[in-house]
Amino acid sequence: MKIAVFDDYRVGLVEGDQIYDVTSAIPDASGAWPPVFMNRAIADWEAVAPRLREARRSARTLPLDSVRLLPPNPCPVHVLAAPANYAKHIAEMGAMAVTKKGRTAREQGLFMKASGSLTGPARGIELPRGSKRRFDHESELAVVIGKTARNVRREQALDHVFGYSCLIDVTMRIVKDVAEEERVMRKSFETFTPLGPWIVTADEVGDPQKLRNQLFVNGECRQDANTADMIVDVAELIELASSVMTLYPGDVIASGTPQGIGPIRAQDKVMIRIEKVGEMTVYVRETDAVAPFLFEAAQE
Amino acid sequence: MKIAVFDDYRVGLVEGDQIYDVTSAIPDASGAWPPVFMNRAIADWEAVAPRLREARRSARTLPLDSVRLLPPNPCPVHVLAAPANYAKHIAEMGAMAVTKKGRTAREQGLFMKASGSLTGPARGIELPRGSKRRFDHESELAVVIGKTARNVRREQALDHVFGYSCLIDVTMRIVKDVAEEERVMRKSFETFTPLGPWIVTADEVGDPQKLRNQLFVNGECRQDANTADMIVDVAELIELASSVMTLYPGDVIASGTPQGIGPIRAQDKVMIRIEKVGEMTVYVRETDAVAPFLFEAAQE
Repeated sequence: MKIAVFDDYRVGLVEGDQIYDVTSAIPDASGAWPPVFMNRAIADWEAVAPRLREARRSARTLPLDSVRLLPPNPCPVHVLAAPANYAKHIAEMGAMAVTKKGRTAREQGLFMKASGSLTGPARGIELPRGSKRRFDHESELAVVIGKTARNVRREQALDHVFGYSCLIDVTMRIVKDVAEEERVMRKSFETFTPLGPWIVTADEVGDPQKLRNQLFVNGECRQDANTADMIVDVAELIELASSVMTLYPGDVIASGTPQGIGPIRAQDKVMIRIEKVGEMTVYVRETDAVAPFLFEAAQE
Repeated sequence: MKIAVFDDYRVGLVEGDQIYDVTSAIPDASGAWPPVFMNRAIADWEAVAPRLREARRSARTLPLDSVRLLPPNPCPVHVLAAPANYAKHIAEMGAMAVTKKGRTAREQGLFMKASGSLTGPARGIELPRGSKRRFDHESELAVVIGKTARNVRREQALDHVFGYSCLIDVTMRIVKDVAEEERVMRKSFETFTPLGPWIVTADEVGDPQKLRNQLFVNGECRQDANTADMIVDVAELIELASSVMTLYPGDVIASGTPQGIGPIRAQDKVMIRIEKVGEMTVYVRETDAVAPFLFEAAQE
């Protein structure tokens, strides 16, 4: 099942180039802010799934390219992310790396991105106007938690996964002399976490460690790797995170980027494609707002 | 107005040693998970406040010490925190500091804590069982955002504040050789963000930069400072954060700790007191869960 959120927080099932509007099966979709209805639907999935299938039978159908896709979970309680999870990416980072000793999530732990940094294909990525900083794409498999997870061992971890999605972890790179800028803030600018185009339920993906992960900028392939090369795999990431905190239904874990990261600029067309999950195209533009003085000052 | 959340997500107004149960005035309190009703009430405050006052007139009254206080906003969209915001605290940190050059939120930016790390007096602080790591108290004024804030200048920033609360930013200290542990994770263990005992609306506090901030462990004063000594004040913190991301109603900003941080252990009684805001006592215990292997391994 491919579940998308579109237009004014409607919920749809995607089949081929069509989307079936099943909003009526999700009680509080298109409802009040904050839009937490997907967390609730995922938490109550055993009851919701049959309602979705029922609604699908009489659903209004729309061409997929006629709707505005939003992030398929617009407001997770937590968005976690794994640092330094592919050996070749660690190597390419050199002086730009936060970790200087090749440490992974096992030693660093995970970091967070603001839920408010999520964006979908409809809105795309917005860079601060006139900034001279470097903003990079990072192509990542996103894991969406299905069942509350606390102190879960890796052997049981994948039972707690609801599905998968494509995630671009847009990142403002550190400048050599100001390496102490907070990773959270460099990665939490509004729209710096494109997620989508939908969530594919775990049953359609199978083993998450056998997926080709590619990212293209203006048609040119920049990243091309396989989740088989993750250092800390999805199951272990869940074990690590759930040893510290409770993971809730709808929570998102960005599983780290492989090699090939590089800068994006206004007018770029960025496409991420993950095997068995889907492909998502987002455009880059500048915001109307002036560059945040915080980080511009830091680069001098 | 002092607004508390208690028992099974009921909402109360606190006056003296009594709490007035005004849950009926908050549409979705005591409702579905995730408990986002306080964000919604704050976002719609102009409509909600008269309803609260109306409900207060016929409300059931309970002795404050008979209820179980939860965090007064149980599920903010964002919990942000200011690093290194008092000069004497920066000085005391020495080798334990993340920043080595006395950099503040102006240069580092803010970091995040997991919303799931919030806890109230009823539950208290839970340390990982058997851990040999050092866990510290940090006594902080919490700012609760009232109005959506994006690119807000400091001159207008305080207009976007709903109220204030007491916050203890419990922190696992870095070990010298593994300074690269993620700050987010060291501070996001479940229950590592006691918040409360209530939110005091901004009108009752006035200038947030004139508040004595004290923390006691087992009756002994460990921290005693004044928010006048903040390096980056509340208004500038809002300016900084809102230049990167949208701050939403109910979002919490921990404004940084003054000097006097120190370790807490199971059975400790921790009391935080902030002038014009209130005082909150929380107890420390060990969880039933074994220590997270992640961080235990790191300290060897």
